Amino acid sequence: MDIEFIDLKECILADNEGDAQEVRDLLKEKKVVLWNIMSSPGSGKTTFIIDVIRRFASKPMVNGKCLRFGVIEADIESTVDAEKMHALGVPTIQLRTGGGCHLDAAMVMEALKKMPLDELDVLIVENVGNLVCPAEFDIGATLATMLLSIPEGDDKCIKYPLMFTVTKAVIVTKMDVKDFFDFNLETLEKNTRRLNNDLRIFPVSVKTGDGMETVMEWLNNQITSNL
Amino acid sequence: MDIEFIDLKECILADNEGDAQEVRDLLKEKKVVLWNIMSSPGSGKTTFIIDVIRRFASKPMVNGKCLRFGVIEADIESTVDAEKMHALGVPTIQLRTGGGCHLDAAMVMEALKKMPLDELDVLIVENVGNLVCPAEFDIGATLATMLLSIPEGDDKCIKYPLMFTVTKAVIVTKMDVKDFFDFNLETLEKNTRRLNNDLRIFPVSVKTGDGMETVMEWLNNQITSNL
Repeated sequence: MDIEFIDLKECILADNEGDAQEVRDLLKEKKVVLWNIMSSPGSGKTTFIIDVIRRFASKPMVNGKCLRFGVIEADIESTVDAEKMHALGVPTIQLRTGGGCHLDAAMVMEALKKMPLDELDVLIVENVGNLVCPAEFDIGATLATMLLSIPEGDDKCIKYPLMFTVTKAVIVTKMDVKDFFDFNLETLEKNTRRLNNDLRIFPVSVKTGDGMETVMEWLNNQITSNL
Repeated sequence: MDIEFIDLKECILADNEGDAQEVRDLLKEKKVVLWNIMSSPGSGKTTFIIDVIRRFASKPMVNGKCLRFGVIEADIESTVDAEKMHALGVPTIQLRTGGGCHLDAAMVMEALKKMPLDELDVLIVENVGNLVCPAEFDIGATLATMLLSIPEGDDKCIKYPLMFTVTKAVIVTKMDVKDFFDFNLETLEKNTRRLNNDLRIFPVSVKTGDGMETVMEWLNNQITSNL
């Protein structure tokens, strides 16, 4: 018996574009960069975000000031990540999706209403851990990146292609355990080229710090050129 | 500023229950166990399924015959997993969800129509790699299990609780790399107890074979008691 194929219609997606434009307009006026970070569960989003905020805190800009961060934490039920961000001293809004598998622009707008936007330069959104649904919803972000951890494997762009087409960079996390897994960075690069020729790939280990300087430089350029 | 909370309404879920009952009725008549396997992307579903099918192939039942398997592969775009199953010589149907984040019972029914049900004892469904949406859709399965890999972390049941309540067992995969990650099996056990007191936890490494005999014994009981 050969493999047979049945094509199924897509999930119905809410029309989200108008809300995303409102988010964009508001943040342009307030000069705030909205940075959407997506990945599977357990790829290391929270750990990466904390490290990036700490690194920017010791990196003054040309005017001698540091970038001011805020965080929107999307979580289905728990508050564990929001508590970690709050402990860092950055303004944090927890969006509890109550089972929902992604954020949409209207949810983000609700969070913006409670954020001190005049006191921020960058607002990070840690999206729901999910490689599928968040890729389908434009939340009005200025910058979208994804994380892919070494244990997940180098074939994820074949199986979950949309995420790799809507993001500007893949941060490949957990590089410190690369020797224990069958992950080939060249395979990832080759496969992503077909989907998104401009996609940047940054291998990092937050644990050892390897690669973080390179990704920080890129992030700094992305953020300052959009302020 | 304190953490603020905004509760958001759930994704709209299609009423799927009638279809799930039809799947159940058909498979009861055909004496086929439908086994739904769910996890995040990259937890090792395909590798685990291949190992289990191979182990059952060398494990004759009391009547001297081996269990006969079929596989339904859910994938958003690619056919890589279905090709691996097909190479194993088991009847395989690929359900391409075209962006969809989960399977529902109606999709499974379409696959059943093309499966040689009279020649099968167990039909494995490898669901879309997603710890959120597949948990919400009853596909009419006799047995639902999930995989959680060591690199994902022991806090996933706090952040994605529904998956841990709708499954009978968590197969904790990639135990061979446990020393390189901060994963505590007792923490997982303690946290899952609150959600689902009957949930079984099976730590395994498909690579080394550790733990596979124990999970095979449990699976054999689950399958044969439902045939």
